[in-house]
Amino acid sequence: MSSQQPRYVKMHDNDNVVIIANNGGLPAGTVLDNGIELREAIPQGHKVALTDLAAGDIVRRYNVVIGYAKTDLPKGSWLNEHRLDMPAPPELDNLPIATEKTTLDPLEGYTFEGFRNPDGSVGTRNILAISTSVQCVSGVVAHAVERIRAELLPKYPNVDNVISLEHIYGCGVAIQAPDAVIPIRTLRNIARNPNFGGRTLVVSLGCEKLQADVFFPDRFIPIKNGGFQRQDENIALVTLQDEENIGFEGMIQSIMRAAEEHLIVLNKRVRTTCPISDLVIGVQCGGSDAFSGVSANPVVGYATDLFVRAGASVMFSEVTEVRDGIAQLTARAASPEVAQQLIDQMRWYDQYLGRGSADRSANTSPGNKRGGLSNIVEKAMGSIVKSGSTPIQGVVPPGERCTTRGLNFSATPASDFVCGTLQLAAGMTMHVFTTGRGTPYSLKEAPVVKVATRSDLARRWHDLMDINAGRVVDGDATIEEMGWEMFRYMIDVASGRKQTCAESLKIYNSLALFNPAPIT
Amino acid sequence: MSSQQPRYVKMHDNDNVVIIANNGGLPAGTVLDNGIELREAIPQGHKVALTDLAAGDIVRRYNVVIGYAKTDLPKGSWLNEHRLDMPAPPELDNLPIATEKTTLDPLEGYTFEGFRNPDGSVGTRNILAISTSVQCVSGVVAHAVERIRAELLPKYPNVDNVISLEHIYGCGVAIQAPDAVIPIRTLRNIARNPNFGGRTLVVSLGCEKLQADVFFPDRFIPIKNGGFQRQDENIALVTLQDEENIGFEGMIQSIMRAAEEHLIVLNKRVRTTCPISDLVIGVQCGGSDAFSGVSANPVVGYATDLFVRAGASVMFSEVTEVRDGIAQLTARAASPEVAQQLIDQMRWYDQYLGRGSADRSANTSPGNKRGGLSNIVEKAMGSIVKSGSTPIQGVVPPGERCTTRGLNFSATPASDFVCGTLQLAAGMTMHVFTTGRGTPYSLKEAPVVKVATRSDLARRWHDLMDINAGRVVDGDATIEEMGWEMFRYMIDVASGRKQTCAESLKIYNSLALFNPAPIT
Ligand SMILES: [Ca+2]
Ligand SMILES: [Ca+2]
Ligand SMILES: [Ca+2]
Ligand SMILES: [Ca+2]
Ligand SMILES: [Ca+2]
Repeated sequence: MSSQQPRYVKMHDNDNVVIIANNGGLPAGTVLDNGIELREAIPQGHKVALTDLAAGDIVRRYNVVIGYAKTDLPKGSWLNEHRLDMPAPPELDNLPIATEKTTLDPLEGYTFEGFRNPDGSVGTRNILAISTSVQCVSGVVAHAVERIRAELLPKYPNVDNVISLEHIYGCGVAIQAPDAVIPIRTLRNIARNPNFGGRTLVVSLGCEKLQADVFFPDRFIPIKNGGFQRQDENIALVTLQDEENIGFEGMIQSIMRAAEEHLIVLNKRVRTTCPISDLVIGVQCGGSDAFSGVSANPVVGYATDLFVRAGASVMFSEVTEVRDGIAQLTARAASPEVAQQLIDQMRWYDQYLGRGSADRSANTSPGNKRGGLSNIVEKAMGSIVKSGSTPIQGVVPPGERCTTRGLNFSATPASDFVCGTLQLAAGMTMHVFTTGRGTPYSLKEAPVVKVATRSDLARRWHDLMDINAGRVVDGDATIEEMGWEMFRYMIDVASGRKQTCAESLKIYNSLALFNPAPIT
Repeated sequence: MSSQQPRYVKMHDNDNVVIIANNGGLPAGTVLDNGIELREAIPQGHKVALTDLAAGDIVRRYNVVIGYAKTDLPKGSWLNEHRLDMPAPPELDNLPIATEKTTLDPLEGYTFEGFRNPDGSVGTRNILAISTSVQCVSGVVAHAVERIRAELLPKYPNVDNVISLEHIYGCGVAIQAPDAVIPIRTLRNIARNPNFGGRTLVVSLGCEKLQADVFFPDRFIPIKNGGFQRQDENIALVTLQDEENIGFEGMIQSIMRAAEEHLIVLNKRVRTTCPISDLVIGVQCGGSDAFSGVSANPVVGYATDLFVRAGASVMFSEVTEVRDGIAQLTARAASPEVAQQLIDQMRWYDQYLGRGSADRSANTSPGNKRGGLSNIVEKAMGSIVKSGSTPIQGVVPPGERCTTRGLNFSATPASDFVCGTLQLAAGMTMHVFTTGRGTPYSLKEAPVVKVATRSDLARRWHDLMDINAGRVVDGDATIEEMGWEMFRYMIDVASGRKQTCAESLKIYNSLALFNPAPIT
């Protein structure tokens, strides 16, 4: 399709706007094939009015009210964030509850090659993870990881990597404050991520508030020494303040000794054929533009449906990006209980934002707006698309594990690295990340499949983007075709047959804990 | 002095407790030379009652009420956190205001060799710093730093290091929330730290909320490109989403090109003789025990007085650790205005903790208590000692720069890495850190001088502790002698004649931003 021919995308018959698809946008005077003449130049991804709007008139996209015209705007006008008033946030009562039940046929015949763990969970990678109970020790742990990579890892070829689960949690967090439970359970559950084979090593200082028996209460994960009785050897604890650690080299040696014990065990892990239902997938978007909701997110939504039909657990997230679509979500809840959990999480988040004198409108970024997303309502509609069309079977509070198969809402901030961190805590073994403006964000704890919304980005960032959903905008592929392509690619990645772009380049962002509690 | 001979420390004549100084503590039945017989074994650093206490009686240390006896406690009893009730926090009105003016003679004849910057500030190190406006880019920046260190740094021998100012700030922070100003100005002011020679490199993504003109408003630091007009070349901005960056290697090359421009300039920096008044020192304590307030902190307090007398800026910090001593601080304020600023910062912090259902008592850690500190009141009295005895000339709100010479209170959380991060933003070029339990914490942005409270720790962590203040407890040195020793050592470190232990070992903790604003 020529780049000269005017192209645009309409999401729903009832919409009174379309977005311009051409790379570089279209000049004033261009006439679309629906007869609309552009009254001004309109950038790619931005909206044009299909009808004459009077001040206060509804602007509708995705068959949803995304705003009201601020002034009179004749058809062909550019509708950007300055020309729209945002609707009020939807109330959290009188919502439709579990009214919509989309039933899709089970999808059979697909498997992947994964690392099955003693607890039944299955990893997509075989990683030695070193966690810490307090940030104080992280400078020492960074040295230990380098030494382990250089001196030990080559001896254990079945182990993919050695990583530190670095974070800035420390005694500053008011540990008794009600919300402190969130960062603590996040750290605890990340240590249990299936990609680590149940063999995470914990380095502690000794005097910190997050003592071993608080980090892992009730021998949640048996701890080898320190704090309480050794049960088995699943998790080793190295405490830097222990008397036997003489100087820096003593600390490094203690960590390396414990690491090697774990490497010996991890090296014996082998991939076996597993049903798709053993996959735990987290999806999110970041650096979004107006094509996120048109190309990449619908492609992810299609793949989400495929994985759910095949029995996998798939989480979508980002509370402030779905808040405006709460009525759609409660309607899609598999049960009234699930709907109530959705409402509870939204209410908690409303209150959390309110305490800090913020609201959901704080979500949209300048890049979102330059990319054509006028406000959070429009962004939300494009974001929810990632969840596909199946009923929501479970809700995962921030930092908790996902324990329900099928589609889950994991209630996290939209912030890319905070969301990714919480999805790892939920047990995610593969991450899908769509981006329109482009972000090189990635994780070292699980493979991250990057999906570009536009071909221009996919071309420019040729070695950073795994999948180019821009082909949908270009008319070169359908959402269905690309959804299947993504499904097959992700199975290859999960099975270790393929590495993601970010894995090849070893691009790793650090964890970012969600800590709503105060710091002392 | 033999380890058999019972030793103890009394802080003030009016105290009705002493702490046991012997390594390993003392057994029941030991008779001190003041005639007190221990009724039970008492660990090192823990308190013993000098008088018979009835339930409710005052327990006094540092001539301050640190608590009330929970039950009847005969003399010779162990007074630990389970046997004391904590006093109520002092009110913030009716405080003594600027009533106490300690005048110390100026100290002349001392200089150091520092790197003077165009803006008049002076660094103790010559570091190329790479900051980021959003966490998304940090995985790429980590690669760039490795490449710059390996390929460029060897060509510029006058540059000490290349570092990334990594952090987890991102679009998630509700940028319009009132408290979001704190992490933003922290990042801005860290980029201006004198150790970076006014030549910080900023890597941005492009679509983030913290755009260049928000990060550096009013061309606060002139930005080379992107966002607004180039003024000069002090700060270069590399934007990963810029069209010219093709793929990962394109991003790396852009960062390396900008880095080399800066390295050329930084390599020309030379040390010149500077007055001590060009030093900006931050002091804090972490992993404290009962000896922190007996040995290391008084030694630091003595050195603080020496530096203040010589004209330097010295900051003490840690709001929750001085909150119980507010009356001492307002009395020491150099003016009613400074006293009011102290009160304002304490009030803001009280409210901040209250919003999260926490209070100052959340500060003390299990290690503090095992080390003999029963509660935050006792810890506070030992913490304030670091500030020496001179009037408080200035108050630095969190994230702001210190602009006043002499003793300053920089209002930060007590959390070690959060405090260190904020002191760097305040312009700190040398950090002093006392520890009793022991922490390997350090920074890469400025040298960190570590001071052990006990000889046992200094021996065990022989290559991690710069100064052993335990010699004061052992009776081998006076506070005055050790204060002078520290003063001279710090001048050597500031001048680059000596490296700290942590610099030699390259132990670096990451920055930890103080973000009281919510995350979307
Ligand atoms: Ca998103
Ligand atoms: Ca985002
Ligand atoms: Ca996101
Ligand atoms: Ca402290
Ligand atoms: Ca501290």
